[in-house]
Amino acid sequence: MRINIVGAGAMGSLFGGLLAESGNQVFLIDIWKEHVDAINNKGLWIEGLSGNRFVKIEASTETEEIQGKPDLIVIFVKSYHTEEAANKLLPIIGENTSLLTLQNGLGNTEILSKIYGKEKVIAGTTSFGATILGPGKVLHAGTGPTAIGELDGKLTTRIKDIAEVLNQSGIKTEINQNVLGLIWSKLVINVGINALGVLMRVKNGEIVKGEFSPKIQRALVEEAVQVAKKKGIKLTHEDMLNEVISICKKTENNINSMLQDVIRKRKTEIDFINGAIVKEGEMVNIPTPFNQMITELIRAIEEKYEKQINI
Amino acid sequence: MRINIVGAGAMGSLFGGLLAESGNQVFLIDIWKEHVDAINNKGLWIEGLSGNRFVKIEASTETEEIQGKPDLIVIFVKSYHTEEAANKLLPIIGENTSLLTLQNGLGNTEILSKIYGKEKVIAGTTSFGATILGPGKVLHAGTGPTAIGELDGKLTTRIKDIAEVLNQSGIKTEINQNVLGLIWSKLVINVGINALGVLMRVKNGEIVKGEFSPKIQRALVEEAVQVAKKKGIKLTHEDMLNEVISICKKTENNINSMLQDVIRKRKTEIDFINGAIVKEGEMVNIPTPFNQMITELIRAIEEKYEKQINI
Repeated sequence: MRINIVGAGAMGSLFGGLLAESGNQVFLIDIWKEHVDAINNKGLWIEGLSGNRFVKIEASTETEEIQGKPDLIVIFVKSYHTEEAANKLLPIIGENTSLLTLQNGLGNTEILSKIYGKEKVIAGTTSFGATILGPGKVLHAGTGPTAIGELDGKLTTRIKDIAEVLNQSGIKTEINQNVLGLIWSKLVINVGINALGVLMRVKNGEIVKGEFSPKIQRALVEEAVQVAKKKGIKLTHEDMLNEVISICKKTENNINSMLQDVIRKRKTEIDFINGAIVKEGEMVNIPTPFNQMITELIRAIEEKYEKQINI
Repeated sequence: MRINIVGAGAMGSLFGGLLAESGNQVFLIDIWKEHVDAINNKGLWIEGLSGNRFVKIEASTETEEIQGKPDLIVIFVKSYHTEEAANKLLPIIGENTSLLTLQNGLGNTEILSKIYGKEKVIAGTTSFGATILGPGKVLHAGTGPTAIGELDGKLTTRIKDIAEVLNQSGIKTEINQNVLGLIWSKLVINVGINALGVLMRVKNGEIVKGEFSPKIQRALVEEAVQVAKKKGIKLTHEDMLNEVISICKKTENNINSMLQDVIRKRKTEIDFINGAIVKEGEMVNIPTPFNQMITELIRAIEEKYEKQINI
């Protein structure tokens, strides 16, 4: 299959490497020039769970360098870059090109659908974990289920083909007929972990301990679940709060991705996580004061990165 | 005048020293043994705005060591220690002993009134600034108006006597006939500065800059003002938000006291500041979601001091 990966950060690079190794024609696109140059000069270095090796793969900072139309474009940019990245794809999207988003947060399928039409877009979630170790180097840190599906839940030929390609590359993938429910469920989990972890500056396991932190987590998750229910989204678990707590315990030593962003003083995905609950809540008339407040606090923290007192 | 100072931290020590120098019989009480020992052995060292010198003054860790009944007890403990400290005072409170609170936050007059009766209690605010430099050493860092008054606003002999004693000690003091309004106004200012400064970890001046931080400040202050109005409190300024902003600008390089507490991983006065707005709001049926959320976040941060990731 001809596959372009847009956003060759940790996850995009790992997926691209695994897909290339199993014989697909893969092209990575990323704005990080040193990373792209290292991959083109020496190959992509993958180490960790799937073994240590170089993978030969093409990369570029420019979408225009890609020849021909790919069968599949996998979007792995941070959510706040989706729109910009998607707009640049116009020249390489052919009649048979599908767009797959495996990104965190809410709003990515909507952005892609708005630009290229709903029928172009498929979506999913993945539990793989990866970390960039330096230009051209990625650590395969975690392996877990990946699920993809058509937005309308249909079992199409293309979704089966793409799932097969992923499975053949060592990315264990299921077809899910309620992929929006899956994305929302992952969203609810991030709503209950990420921003709260940032404000207390703790690992996932700490969030569910004590008196006050679990109380705030409950409030954030309950608002998100109410919005999802009002929208008719079928979540993966009847008791999502319990699921969030269970995931905090399972990943107790993880520093969540938003906290990693704040530690590095990078832009966070707050607008696509708690901020998305606020926006969706407004549309269906569900009040979300806790998510609103925490969204604005994270935005305020981002705004003050350069003025922070070192503690 | 015979004066006991309960809570000889920075402000208590400075007030005690100034009152002793002008000829009052002052006794300091504090649980910090090294500080008490240093004061008893060498005197209290004051430096800064009022000059550098040792002041001879008695101190103790035990209320029981005080002989006789003082005319005035000034309470300067952190608000979360008021109740415990007040209960220990019973043996030394005589018929003519007045209790003066100059503490930050809401609830101190209520605690003292509940234990000893309203008529014993007078209250006020002070703009003096002080910092402990080590055991027995205090920096006189800031000078500004002090105001005291009877809770019912009456101009009594005792309030005039106490104001005179303070004025004679170089503590410029006015009698105010709306001392609850004064305390509430200072509370509203702390509501708009302290916890928000903590969450962004910035100095006062930064809070009023940018897009998101001023928005949160406005929400916090507006809730507090609504609660005050519903309670019939007369605040010092018609536009309190404007006053909060003006104070942030005037004190732009200050690290607020709650942020200082969080930096040192000490208990904060959150329950007597934003938490007090939540409690008072409940009693008068004014919703305070922003103050509620920020109160719980600060409590959660306190709860996680020992688990924080170092950034």
